[in-house]
Amino acid sequence: MIITIQNEASSDERAQLMALLCRITGSQHPITSTQMGEREVIALDSASLDAQAHTALSAQPAVATLHSPKTSYQLASRLFQTHNTTITIGETHACNPVTIGGEQSMPVVMAGPCAVESREQLITTAQAVKRAGARVLRGGAFKPRTSPYQFQGLGIEGLHMLAEAREVTGLPVITEVMEPGMVETVAQYADVLQIGTRNAQNFPLLLAAGRNSKKLPVLLKRGFSSTLDEWLLAAEYILAAGNPNVILCERGIRSYDPQTRNVLDLTCIPLLHQLTHLPIVVDPSHSTGRRELVPIMSRAAIAAEAQGLIIEAHPDPDKALCDSKQSITPTQLEKIIQETHMIARMLRGEAYVA
Amino acid sequence: MIITIQNEASSDERAQLMALLCRITGSQHPITSTQMGEREVIALDSASLDAQAHTALSAQPAVATLHSPKTSYQLASRLFQTHNTTITIGETHACNPVTIGGEQSMPVVMAGPCAVESREQLITTAQAVKRAGARVLRGGAFKPRTSPYQFQGLGIEGLHMLAEAREVTGLPVITEVMEPGMVETVAQYADVLQIGTRNAQNFPLLLAAGRNSKKLPVLLKRGFSSTLDEWLLAAEYILAAGNPNVILCERGIRSYDPQTRNVLDLTCIPLLHQLTHLPIVVDPSHSTGRRELVPIMSRAAIAAEAQGLIIEAHPDPDKALCDSKQSITPTQLEKIIQETHMIARMLRGEAYVA
Amino acid sequence: MIITIQNEASSDERAQLMALLCRITGSQHPITSTQMGEREVIALDSASLDAQAHTALSAQPAVATLHSPKTSYQLASRLFQTHNTTITIGETHACNPVTIGGEQSMPVVMAGPCAVESREQLITTAQAVKRAGARVLRGGAFKPRTSPYQFQGLGIEGLHMLAEAREVTGLPVITEVMEPGMVETVAQYADVLQIGTRNAQNFPLLLAAGRNSKKLPVLLKRGFSSTLDEWLLAAEYILAAGNPNVILCERGIRSYDPQTRNVLDLTCIPLLHQLTHLPIVVDPSHSTGRRELVPIMSRAAIAAEAQGLIIEAHPDPDKALCDSKQSITPTQLEKIIQETHMIARMLRGEAYVA
Amino acid sequence: MIITIQNEASSDERAQLMALLCRITGSQHPITSTQMGEREVIALDSASLDAQAHTALSAQPAVATLHSPKTSYQLASRLFQTHNTTITIGETHACNPVTIGGEQSMPVVMAGPCAVESREQLITTAQAVKRAGARVLRGGAFKPRTSPYQFQGLGIEGLHMLAEAREVTGLPVITEVMEPGMVETVAQYADVLQIGTRNAQNFPLLLAAGRNSKKLPVLLKRGFSSTLDEWLLAAEYILAAGNPNVILCERGIRSYDPQTRNVLDLTCIPLLHQLTHLPIVVDPSHSTGRRELVPIMSRAAIAAEAQGLIIEAHPDPDKALCDSKQSITPTQLEKIIQETHMIARMLRGEAYVA
Repeated sequence: MIITIQNEASSDERAQLMALLCRITGSQHPITSTQMGEREVIALDSASLDAQAHTALSAQPAVATLHSPKTSYQLASRLFQTHNTTITIGETHACNPVTIGGEQSMPVVMAGPCAVESREQLITTAQAVKRAGARVLRGGAFKPRTSPYQFQGLGIEGLHMLAEAREVTGLPVITEVMEPGMVETVAQYADVLQIGTRNAQNFPLLLAAGRNSKKLPVLLKRGFSSTLDEWLLAAEYILAAGNPNVILCERGIRSYDPQTRNVLDLTCIPLLHQLTHLPIVVDPSHSTGRRELVPIMSRAAIAAEAQGLIIEAHPDPDKALCDSKQSITPTQLEKIIQETHMIARMLRGEAYVA
Repeated sequence: MIITIQNEASSDERAQLMALLCRITGSQHPITSTQMGEREVIALDSASLDAQAHTALSAQPAVATLHSPKTSYQLASRLFQTHNTTITIGETHACNPVTIGGEQSMPVVMAGPCAVESREQLITTAQAVKRAGARVLRGGAFKPRTSPYQFQGLGIEGLHMLAEAREVTGLPVITEVMEPGMVETVAQYADVLQIGTRNAQNFPLLLAAGRNSKKLPVLLKRGFSSTLDEWLLAAEYILAAGNPNVILCERGIRSYDPQTRNVLDLTCIPLLHQLTHLPIVVDPSHSTGRRELVPIMSRAAIAAEAQGLIIEAHPDPDKALCDSKQSITPTQLEKIIQETHMIARMLRGEAYVA
Repeated sequence: MIITIQNEASSDERAQLMALLCRITGSQHPITSTQMGEREVIALDSASLDAQAHTALSAQPAVATLHSPKTSYQLASRLFQTHNTTITIGETHACNPVTIGGEQSMPVVMAGPCAVESREQLITTAQAVKRAGARVLRGGAFKPRTSPYQFQGLGIEGLHMLAEAREVTGLPVITEVMEPGMVETVAQYADVLQIGTRNAQNFPLLLAAGRNSKKLPVLLKRGFSSTLDEWLLAAEYILAAGNPNVILCERGIRSYDPQTRNVLDLTCIPLLHQLTHLPIVVDPSHSTGRRELVPIMSRAAIAAEAQGLIIEAHPDPDKALCDSKQSITPTQLEKIIQETHMIARMLRGEAYVA
Repeated sequence: MIITIQNEASSDERAQLMALLCRITGSQHPITSTQMGEREVIALDSASLDAQAHTALSAQPAVATLHSPKTSYQLASRLFQTHNTTITIGETHACNPVTIGGEQSMPVVMAGPCAVESREQLITTAQAVKRAGARVLRGGAFKPRTSPYQFQGLGIEGLHMLAEAREVTGLPVITEVMEPGMVETVAQYADVLQIGTRNAQNFPLLLAAGRNSKKLPVLLKRGFSSTLDEWLLAAEYILAAGNPNVILCERGIRSYDPQTRNVLDLTCIPLLHQLTHLPIVVDPSHSTGRRELVPIMSRAAIAAEAQGLIIEAHPDPDKALCDSKQSITPTQLEKIIQETHMIARMLRGEAYVA
């Protein structure tokens, strides 16, 4: 159930509501509200509320409305919020902010190396992807690697380099965070917190990302074999913890054919647009694992109404320290961005000349 | 291994080659050749050929070249034939033939009801999908149904109706064949033989379709959980049996999320374009199982360079006897066809005005 | 819906019922009844029956009872028949018949080569597997192979050899049939008709196997990615066509880890025992694809209450023409049979000494 | 690569080796060694070692041997350690310790409620599962739940209750840890740290569990869709971090049939016994999600040579706060334990009377 709080509620009325909620839910934790657009809301487990509790809540002066979307997720549900969520990336650091989601914005391309490898590599790549038309710089400082013997990223040093690349290019920065205890540290440097597929149901991490002090946007990748319900419930952890800025990222699901790393499930895009108001982007690099497939699947993703792409690009892909096989060059990136813009304009019904 | 036969080989020389091949392979069956474009070819299991047999074959006057693509499939391989296969649909019956495949042709849309239900329903639908821009009429006369208690199609009567609908509209007709013994019967009425997902590895059926006396094109759907290798080897059964006219059809693969009937694997399109010269179409109806997803996934399929679509359309989808949930109206079909044409033109670099 | 026919119904009363059924269902085909144990039954699509039809059927003198199990499958349902189906293998040819299913019978092991390769190989293997304790001889004469260039079996000649091996050893014979037109031919030689995983939803083949004139038992393998519902509906095709003798065979399902050919789903055994009265056997050879796993998974299958096993055995596995990697020797087979018997006795609560 | 350290190496020689390793690997972190049975070892990424580095290492007095198993995992590999790892559970707190793994030990059954719900519920259950023959008490204090609105466990309070239940019954305790920052806290109370399926590739958590100061055993569940390689590499994270005590737990993998929560992959047991020396247990509760399947699949798991089981049991399963559908009663548990013991004895070749 979702409680929308009266805008004009006094602090006493709010305190009274909170006290009631603690009593009803038996929660030891303080109750968190989330600012969803104009509305300040609190989401609760409906199952814990009997009729009496419901009546008591309705009677609270601080309560504007009670809402019960018939989905397991609440705040993420299109039944709760009918308009698309718009998220601004890059508000807290000095850079060129970008808007994602919303009704008619152009697709946002985030690009950069799989891993931050060195200051020089990163700055060069950042400048190149900017020239190619990317609007957010991606790059991993902390890398979740299948084997403990693989390169694990440069860590904090990598975060410093990302911040410097932002200063040089003005591009906001997205980078992965892998553990709850590192969320605030990463949030000092990043403009978007990325949560990877292996952490798609790492609930303490989701909660920490939801509680990050700057409410930085979180890009939440789909788990290797997450259903849409599981994915949206993972997003719900972030939303219910107080952060309304969640971007979903389809990155391929596990399947049986070794031809590709994963199967890119583009049908999830229109399905998610039905089920949720959150923006959806696609990662054509990890989903295919093969660079020659990236341009075509980028196009298809935009045709399926993805609101953005996150792409691995490297000035010299064959020398990349990780995911070399799926990285593309800035020149290829530029062509992809042009094509996706053409498709996006076409879908809006705009005239265009090739 | 593939043997290309000398165009000018005399009948004696050919007979001598055939006799040698029977000896080498120990086959009791007559050896079949296939006309692949300009070339007449015979495909063999390389494993059965020792160096001596190889030398003997090379020495045959009827042999032009020997070719051994390093793929498990031979005739289907892009390593054997580098240019795209072009297939003409509708050459044997009086109708408007359509070309699919080739380098720069527009996507071909095949549309019609899941099942032929009645003469009137079919003619009405055929006229409507023609007006909407479809160029081939689909409709099931023999329906493979999961339960023996579901409607199994009108059978031969349905074939008669399809032939009449072709006469009325000029649209060539595609319909499913489910057993080897029915191939010649269905081939009397149809312009394309469809082999369904449940028969994707029904080898006697594949062989019969390969041997059909008219060399009618065969649309071969991917199995529920076929790998690309398995699928191309299924196509190889048809090709090696003498029929070069195979169209591949992606229709979704089995996965774990009950949200959609199947997962549409659009990445297989560019992969297949690398691996094979055969044309590839997409079925957005069966893959999604939900009509509201059909337009968007149609677009995405064309953006991923599918060469055609096969779509379930019905004048009154809610009353369709099967697959009602995934059928669209002719009006929706028209919009899909317009959009896919726009995307196809855009991909070719043609200017366009919305 | 299932109609149980009065045992004492006169031929006039039966004819009257059949005529009514043709009228109600609109079927052009003659209605088939199936002898399920003591009961003669006819299964119908409930959806096609309105209340009036239901009343008319109830009033028929030839009708004993009407039954509507709330499962998509009817005759296969445990809700229709609560006791286990017992099937006798080897009744039509001179050999030692074997009983499978039933309440307390010992597990039946079927063993033999993947493919019949030669008269000598087959007789030797048959004698060896008999000595090892197998009670049915398996061997493929018609082999469904992924590639058209792989060995496709000896065909009719292979059937002759199987019949001879039965004569020599007294073991009934199971072999695969791949197309409807061959069912009667194979049924002349075989004691059990095997339908393979690729034909798990080849409905014309299922119907032909259901209609085979001798009502030979059919071993129906699970499809690569069949759900239990799909599998039981495939069995229903055979049952509803007049043949009550269906044995289900779990042979692994498709999954994502290349370590094994398939994932053996042993949990399906107790699930199937809940859902259906049909006997269930397990194929540990195809499911694992690795011979060293066959003994252990055989044991686990019997511990999970499988009623039989079908195992690939070859006197010289490394030289087998197909599935060499998963074939075991007769000596290994003997040990497997001993262990499975010990487990089966233990599950019955019998004392045993190792 | 694995370096085995000389038992008699002086502290100077060790320091010299460590310094060399830091130089070679460029690692900022201190190098960790792991005590694997008699051997103290250090595992390294072989890729980072050129021939010169290899020679330098060989020359170190502190180096006994260099070993390079040709598997992506090193310390977990059966190629490195041929004998089974034996792990003692319950050494650090006062209780009855249990040994798992090794060559001929009986299967260890861990049982208890899904979640710790109250002091009384836990003590009652602990006493009941002890009487039934369980040797380790399971119970979740921190529960990873798909939805943020589901019961998340009692937290620290739950840990206190587990410790009390251990005191009362003498059973060592296994409980889940969900985040790196909580490892030391949970390790104060637990005898085995459980890492759940959703954290199967939560690398910071794996490292923290590997570094836990007591070297408490870690039960590592397989990820929803982990391959065996990914799973063993996850175990390698723990081993390489200094903790040799890893128990693998198969708990079902994601598949397409909604009949069961997951597909229990029992074939992984003999496969893992080939690939690794680590003990393997099976969770028949989460894998099936249905209590009536638990006894049969427990038996099958032991027949497949699992070295233990972890089972959800509750005095009143229908009232359990989570996983009610898959919990069994202590009486059912007792029967399971008896059966699994009988099978285990039979597999060892021991005589037995029912």
